Amino acid sequence: MNVVTMPRAPWLDGPAADGLADNAAGRRVPTVINGQEQVPFQGVGGYAPEGARHGPPIRSARDYPADGDKRVPDIKAALEKAGLRDGMTISSHHHFRNGDKVALMVLQAAAEMGVKGLRWFPSASFPVHEPVIQLMEQGVVHHMEGSMNGPLGDFTSRGRMPGLGVLRSHGGRFQAVQDGEVHIDIAVIAAPSADPFGNSDGSHGPSACGSLGFALADSMYADHVIVVTDNLVPFPCIPWQIQGNHVDSVVVVDSVGDPSKIVSGTTQITRSPDRLLIAEHVARFIKEAGIMRDGFSFQAGAGGIALAFVAYLKELMKQDGVKARFVRGGSTQYLVELLQEGLTDYILDGQTFDLAGVQSIGSDPRHVASTPLTSYNYHGKGNFASMVDAVVLGATEVDVDFNANVVTHSDGMLLHGIGGWQNCLFSGCTILAVPSFRDRIPVLVERVTTLTGPGELVDVVVTERGIAINPRREDLLRAVEGSTLPVRPIADIKAEVEAMSGGPPSPPRTTDRPVAVIKWVDGTVLDTVWQVEP
Amino acid sequence: MNVVTMPRAPWLDGPAADGLADNAAGRRVPTVINGQEQVPFQGVGGYAPEGARHGPPIRSARDYPADGDKRVPDIKAALEKAGLRDGMTISSHHHFRNGDKVALMVLQAAAEMGVKGLRWFPSASFPVHEPVIQLMEQGVVHHMEGSMNGPLGDFTSRGRMPGLGVLRSHGGRFQAVQDGEVHIDIAVIAAPSADPFGNSDGSHGPSACGSLGFALADSMYADHVIVVTDNLVPFPCIPWQIQGNHVDSVVVVDSVGDPSKIVSGTTQITRSPDRLLIAEHVARFIKEAGIMRDGFSFQAGAGGIALAFVAYLKELMKQDGVKARFVRGGSTQYLVELLQEGLTDYILDGQTFDLAGVQSIGSDPRHVASTPLTSYNYHGKGNFASMVDAVVLGATEVDVDFNANVVTHSDGMLLHGIGGWQNCLFSGCTILAVPSFRDRIPVLVERVTTLTGPGELVDVVVTERGIAINPRREDLLRAVEGSTLPVRPIADIKAEVEAMSGGPPSPPRTTDRPVAVIKWVDGTVLDTVWQVEP
Repeated sequence: MNVVTMPRAPWLDGPAADGLADNAAGRRVPTVINGQEQVPFQGVGGYAPEGARHGPPIRSARDYPADGDKRVPDIKAALEKAGLRDGMTISSHHHFRNGDKVALMVLQAAAEMGVKGLRWFPSASFPVHEPVIQLMEQGVVHHMEGSMNGPLGDFTSRGRMPGLGVLRSHGGRFQAVQDGEVHIDIAVIAAPSADPFGNSDGSHGPSACGSLGFALADSMYADHVIVVTDNLVPFPCIPWQIQGNHVDSVVVVDSVGDPSKIVSGTTQITRSPDRLLIAEHVARFIKEAGIMRDGFSFQAGAGGIALAFVAYLKELMKQDGVKARFVRGGSTQYLVELLQEGLTDYILDGQTFDLAGVQSIGSDPRHVASTPLTSYNYHGKGNFASMVDAVVLGATEVDVDFNANVVTHSDGMLLHGIGGWQNCLFSGCTILAVPSFRDRIPVLVERVTTLTGPGELVDVVVTERGIAINPRREDLLRAVEGSTLPVRPIADIKAEVEAMSGGPPSPPRTTDRPVAVIKWVDGTVLDTVWQVEP
Repeated sequence: MNVVTMPRAPWLDGPAADGLADNAAGRRVPTVINGQEQVPFQGVGGYAPEGARHGPPIRSARDYPADGDKRVPDIKAALEKAGLRDGMTISSHHHFRNGDKVALMVLQAAAEMGVKGLRWFPSASFPVHEPVIQLMEQGVVHHMEGSMNGPLGDFTSRGRMPGLGVLRSHGGRFQAVQDGEVHIDIAVIAAPSADPFGNSDGSHGPSACGSLGFALADSMYADHVIVVTDNLVPFPCIPWQIQGNHVDSVVVVDSVGDPSKIVSGTTQITRSPDRLLIAEHVARFIKEAGIMRDGFSFQAGAGGIALAFVAYLKELMKQDGVKARFVRGGSTQYLVELLQEGLTDYILDGQTFDLAGVQSIGSDPRHVASTPLTSYNYHGKGNFASMVDAVVLGATEVDVDFNANVVTHSDGMLLHGIGGWQNCLFSGCTILAVPSFRDRIPVLVERVTTLTGPGELVDVVVTERGIAINPRREDLLRAVEGSTLPVRPIADIKAEVEAMSGGPPSPPRTTDRPVAVIKWVDGTVLDTVWQVEP
């Protein structure tokens, strides 16, 4: 068997963060994170990567069973076989979102095996993963790198995580693994269907969740890959989005996840009149700016506004007899209806957001799984994100320079992941569809609390009080000249909102201690999340 | 743009072959080939690879067009963009077999651009590639590594190729690229369908040839990837077996290949009574040895005997009501009929051998493209080849120790490639179905001219004069005890053949100069092909 001598995990000895520097966006960021040297953000397209992609260890078929049966009795046996020890990195994926069961199973098994100082590297965490807080307090998990939605973000913001949180976009996560920035010792893949060889798929089985694309990098680049399934099928598992040729062990469990919980509250159309107005403005803008034409493409997330936008746009497309070439998921029933009604040739889908999406991706060959490699990886030979004509995204804050925040609130609390948001900014027309305030706090601000997306990539901000077009996009300004759309300077909308809400939001009460960083799509450090005052 | 400093190609300065050593099979092999150090064969499963897989250069989307349009005017422009220079390695694939047009287009364009000393790295060459001989004589191509079917094999055997030929199996080619043993500077992929981003597929378009699996390693690991297509479709090209994220340039030409010529003469059932008898023996053996049972699997190539075997086995399966879980292609109409008649759940197909196969893989989701990564790569975490219950293969020679030759004839002439043959030897039951002599020359010999497959992996040799079971396979000997099958010791069959043909074949008249080597599936050197006497 191939023996690889691994250096000791740098975070076991190094500081969580060290050495602050100002980056090209004027943000102060650590130059050493969890013991690893970092490159500060150098501007959009400013950083030229060097060197070679990570090469995982060469294996030999002589060391794997000839009959292809890689099953082991349970997760502990698989972790033992993978040589689990202190300071390793364990990765997991979030296709089950708040219904995931496997990440906790694995981390808790590791705890029982007595290891310490692990780095947990999920593609995202959800409230269901709150018990990881206890594992951090026990020293089993040193820190996590990945989106921290809810409780783990709160925990991190308060400065209670031993290491530094690192937030990456979906594409940035692929880039980090591919480039060798994050070395995964053990990847764990929760698979709704798998065969004993490890071929796996997400579109079939009692726990079907759709695509398994977020686990692709893990399967390709990790030293050891463990597939966990509740639906073992005879070889070959077809389709096989994850190739068994990358897999070391297969574990069969009762249930890998609850697919009903992949549906979050945000996959229902908004009922708020203000938000419906925003959605309508977005749809009309796309039509009137000339983006909605035969063969066009768009992407919209799963938020209430985005869904309403799709419904509006669909009507406009039908009125004008316009058909899209492709639409990008996260898929929902609204996108599936476009496909079924012949309003798009394809759905290119990175993650299924509801069960209609799961059903469609498992049965319709025009509903195609895409992955962070194809869609989002900035360190590839291009990716799909820049070929999408328009994308509709949300934000927690947008400032007068069109910079946007999607991870923290104005009080400084880290409560959301980046997802594909940063990657989508490269679209032909990036539209942030946001209410002008939430809970009486303005969303339009002077300077975003945490920079997640540089303003030069944000083209349009649509609120219920008007549409602000980035002055850099003279073409868009010209395209809607003379339309009845309420186009206004962003500063005007901001001033109106502040007048109504009694002024700008209070500045966040934070200390000078970094608790997490925001990576840009190229692996450089874009901004820092600071500990909130106790 | 990422700048990688490449060392000068080792074959430009080093000898074609140097340093002979005896390997574990008792064959004398060079220890330096085309300037690169080699590991002699160490026995089946004897070699433990070390180190990491090859990491191609990290690229950045900032250096590729945001609209995804990577088209360049012609092949020369693409080669220029790729930085073509002396001593580079250019790869191509052979899915069009004798109908390929693209490999020659590229090599001839390189010749016109004035470069010298190239290594051509096709997955296989065919008679259509004979003009490469002229390019070798002109010094444009220094040597080729890949199967040499016909004229290029003859040319090599006569000692006229400047460098040493290196023959690898399909899996060995993937292994060599993955392990960094062969560094591809420029990969050229002939694509029956492609979009401007470079997503490519072989199953649709006027030149549809089926799978593009042999080009997968090239697309993943080459520094530069050029897609050449005669059927440009709007993004996205679905399905997309080759990912545009690996592609640098797209060139549109009038025709990439003649799909009617992917059908070779060997995709017709034999009419020879002797060969039909062999096919019947093989089918009966598989049934009577108990291999043909519900859920079993088999692979058969495209030769006349193999096709007749499939037809016989099909009848036996129908008689017994037995259904296969999967059959492995190269696919032909005979395998497609099994699928359509419900006699197998899946075809797992590495290359389509006739137009019925092309049609099926493009339309039936149960006809699934496999690749050398999934099927054959020995340096993965297992591969499919060892999970196939029985495989039926040919050979040019088999010796009394069950060693087999598939590349040279008894006169020493190198005339055939290895294909997936070596990889398939890992099947549960490897059956060589061979006539006992060809053109009056015995096929059963004392010692094979060129060792291509070690005897310990060959389980059964079926001839028209009897069935020889490898004594190592006591289980198979027991399984057919008492059957009416003509099971005989291999030496008996050999003696009978020699008595009829006037003795063993004359020994090959070769010199002591190596002209090519046979690699084993793990990259070690299994045997040498020697120059035939002028």
